[in-house]
Amino acid sequence: MDAEALSTTRAAILPGMQALWLEDRQLRVRDDVPIPQPPSGEALVRVLHAGICNTDLELTRGYYPFTGIPGHEFVGVVEQGPPAFVGRRVVGEINAVCGACGACLAGRRTHCERRTVLGIVSRHGAFAHYLVLPAENLHPVPDAVSTEAAVFTEPLAAALEIQQQVPIGPRDRVLVVGDGKLGQLVAQTLALTGCALLVVGRHDAKLALLAARGIETGLADRAARGEFDIAVECTGNPEGFAVAQRAVRPRGTLVLKSTYAGALTLDAAAVVVNELTLVGSRCGPFAPALRLLAEGRVAVEPLIHARYPLAQAVTAFQHAQRPGVLKVLLEIA
Amino acid sequence: MDAEALSTTRAAILPGMQALWLEDRQLRVRDDVPIPQPPSGEALVRVLHAGICNTDLELTRGYYPFTGIPGHEFVGVVEQGPPAFVGRRVVGEINAVCGACGACLAGRRTHCERRTVLGIVSRHGAFAHYLVLPAENLHPVPDAVSTEAAVFTEPLAAALEIQQQVPIGPRDRVLVVGDGKLGQLVAQTLALTGCALLVVGRHDAKLALLAARGIETGLADRAARGEFDIAVECTGNPEGFAVAQRAVRPRGTLVLKSTYAGALTLDAAAVVVNELTLVGSRCGPFAPALRLLAEGRVAVEPLIHARYPLAQAVTAFQHAQRPGVLKVLLEIA
Repeated sequence: MDAEALSTTRAAILPGMQALWLEDRQLRVRDDVPIPQPPSGEALVRVLHAGICNTDLELTRGYYPFTGIPGHEFVGVVEQGPPAFVGRRVVGEINAVCGACGACLAGRRTHCERRTVLGIVSRHGAFAHYLVLPAENLHPVPDAVSTEAAVFTEPLAAALEIQQQVPIGPRDRVLVVGDGKLGQLVAQTLALTGCALLVVGRHDAKLALLAARGIETGLADRAARGEFDIAVECTGNPEGFAVAQRAVRPRGTLVLKSTYAGALTLDAAAVVVNELTLVGSRCGPFAPALRLLAEGRVAVEPLIHARYPLAQAVTAFQHAQRPGVLKVLLEIA
Repeated sequence: MDAEALSTTRAAILPGMQALWLEDRQLRVRDDVPIPQPPSGEALVRVLHAGICNTDLELTRGYYPFTGIPGHEFVGVVEQGPPAFVGRRVVGEINAVCGACGACLAGRRTHCERRTVLGIVSRHGAFAHYLVLPAENLHPVPDAVSTEAAVFTEPLAAALEIQQQVPIGPRDRVLVVGDGKLGQLVAQTLALTGCALLVVGRHDAKLALLAARGIETGLADRAARGEFDIAVECTGNPEGFAVAQRAVRPRGTLVLKSTYAGALTLDAAAVVVNELTLVGSRCGPFAPALRLLAEGRVAVEPLIHARYPLAQAVTAFQHAQRPGVLKVLLEIA
């Protein structure tokens, strides 16, 4: 049966699928969204679980004008695609790239000038029964990684991107500002480098998760001025940025890891006088993220605070926005 | 004659010296400023020429609360100090450091936690007949370097600091935003790296100086969005920063080289999404700056737009603030 015939058959059996739909900053669950048909080079993935990320919350606040199905953290099973992948659990890199533009040719594929981004830019996402992604974006999930843990591959890869950009090791004093979903993963991955690490946050329960793993934690005033070689801002708010900017030493590095909906005020004189380096950091490498999960070197299950079926996705979003809540999963299949 | 006797004698002959005095953002020339007495380890320098820098102009606008003699670009003759230096022309690094704090011990001496800075922070500067600086800060001026050219050592070193911080070579497309005093020196030093260089500015006459040296120039709209690996902001104003931020490619580097009196608005989302690196850059290495001057590899004399005696320093400052004016020198001795 060729792909067109299959799609006709499927359309006959399944005229539409359930999906969360974002339009004009409003979310609703639809049951009439056509099942996507993978173009050449892409795979059809049946979504098992998906995670709600702060970027998803920011999308509902207008961070980026997006209409369609959000969601970019997922694990699924390949239904159509490379034979070696069909039937296997996969996770997927979220940037679908052209391979031919200047950025792609220069090896900066996540910065492809014509990219679409799963559930963020011009491509439907993972809060649905099916998604399509280029086959080259998919990574099989090792058997040792549970389906729930695999949902964290994408944000864990994003946390590891910091270490692709800034060399960090046992000599470094590193501050993580923020104890939320991203801060938790950033802190756990940085702790593996042997650096002297402090995480500051506002929520006892979240900080306790890190303390339980032997990571030093405290409130923001624990971060002394100019004491840190590297500070990683994981709050996405101006107060967190101010804490990080103040904490980094002259010639130190400040990493911006969060999605920001607005502009930040930069103390440019301090940046120049103290010769600070600011580094923006986004998507990272999936292979080491999956390896860390398979080896059990990071603990992601304790970050799961709630699970909802797709039909209750709007409620799940509301839950994810409550203070103190970490990861909310959608159990889609 | 010991130092105290000498100072007594000098005080008898010269009860005071002429100096430009900044207080409550107001400048005036005083004739009653005591000649400084070098403490142990410091040298007394008779100032020959000094240059007015944008930081000096910013000080008069309240960039930093400073009361006393401004000025940090100078060439002078050592009157008291290490015997090998006495009678020689010298230039001087402007940060006087403790050598014992964490920053000094870590090799970041220009970031000494207890530093004073010539004519900027808690130390009288060069717009006077005499100044004192630690002997270790002084560099003899090679005979091949004219006294006027030597005044440019400090800003030329600051321009070279960029290359200490960011590797730049023939593979890189580099944008300099700003055709002023600093932009001119930054552009000339970057041109030596073999990079593909464009300087954008607002003043035909200033751009023509660079064009005459074979450097490509244009107006700001010549700098296409995302086309540059590295952009160096040398205007010190938010418009220049916006041009530089827009021009740099994903994963590119934006160097902040100017003194900023206020805060800048940072498009944090763009920094994160495009994984930009921002680098603040301040004081740089004197030895290569003097070498470039001695070898005639940069041309600084064409940047001199006016010369004034110290008695007319207030007028000189007014001249230096006029649009289109590059370096104004004070001929002090």
